[in-house]
Amino acid sequence: MTAEERHRERMQRKKELVDRKIARATIDRGVLVVNTGNGKGKSSSGFGMLARSLGHGFHCGVVQFIKGTFSTGEEAFFRRFAGDQLDYHVMGEGFTWETQDKARDIAAAQAAWTVAANMLADPAYDFVLLDELNIALVKQYIQLDQVLAALAARPPRQHVVITGRGAPDGLVAVADTVTEMRVVKHAFDAGIKAQKGVEL
Amino acid sequence: MTAEERHRERMQRKKELVDRKIARATIDRGVLVVNTGNGKGKSSSGFGMLARSLGHGFHCGVVQFIKGTFSTGEEAFFRRFAGDQLDYHVMGEGFTWETQDKARDIAAAQAAWTVAANMLADPAYDFVLLDELNIALVKQYIQLDQVLAALAARPPRQHVVITGRGAPDGLVAVADTVTEMRVVKHAFDAGIKAQKGVEL
Repeated sequence: MTAEERHRERMQRKKELVDRKIARATIDRGVLVVNTGNGKGKSSSGFGMLARSLGHGFHCGVVQFIKGTFSTGEEAFFRRFAGDQLDYHVMGEGFTWETQDKARDIAAAQAAWTVAANMLADPAYDFVLLDELNIALVKQYIQLDQVLAALAARPPRQHVVITGRGAPDGLVAVADTVTEMRVVKHAFDAGIKAQKGVEL
Repeated sequence: MTAEERHRERMQRKKELVDRKIARATIDRGVLVVNTGNGKGKSSSGFGMLARSLGHGFHCGVVQFIKGTFSTGEEAFFRRFAGDQLDYHVMGEGFTWETQDKARDIAAAQAAWTVAANMLADPAYDFVLLDELNIALVKQYIQLDQVLAALAARPPRQHVVITGRGAPDGLVAVADTVTEMRVVKHAFDAGIKAQKGVEL
């Protein structure tokens, strides 16, 4: 048997295994995805899934629970589609150490949650991204029970992506896919500024 | 001191720490980002950074080293911008167990690398996404030394994002930001099909 034939035979066996695993995955419904951990990629992965969803012609909703100090690239980009295929809301205040006003932070988080809860109750939305919601949950600016109830009652085909550090255990328990973004290294720690197109 | 005053004081101290850390990050240049690990989010995070870059008006290049068996949402979406702000190439063959032809896989990977290397040599590109390049490196369809040389010689302002499982140590060593996407759980393992807008 030649090397090519051996490769082909090995790959044929692998294909059978993969095909069998794919054939077993028969459930077809909306999924809840949670991106957490301290590493880079939680929000950007959420925005990548938003791009995929828009590519499929889905009607999408975005609520950003933490507003940066300046307009970011994803907002500038996705706002081009706002109103048509996409409802895009930048709702929260800045980070708590920027506002230094807890009452204002709580009010902003709860206003953002009201918008998000309306999306989760509306079957017109195929895909909903709740960016940095975990931050508001960790700080208990929004009650986890409320969020879990809204997620459980959402339309069965609706996909939801929730991002942010410190995803609560109760949220992880009900999610379908959970990724921990682990820092191997980060440019910032080597003295490199946050870069447009990468972080901003 | 009231609870609000205590909160404000604590946040003021935190703000000083954060501001000091930001002030220390003074280096301003193109960064190399690597998304690896077995979890979800490697490619989608790359596409989220692509959206950010397009939002800033950057000229962007994408090479996908693994072609799926059917057109995915991100391709349908970002192709809208092709030619204008974006050069988008889906170059590789399917997964090795689909083609079962190693010579064809190697030829496809090397053709994709030729396109990628031209982008890395061209200062017109502000942002380059090399999706699933790590797969081709792990299989040694493309030589790591070639890739490291092209990365080292690239224009100093150019951002590069490389995705895929099993990033080689040599690549991790020269990268600025590396995230390991760790699986906490995945819908597929619970029998849920890959979903449009999430995986596809």
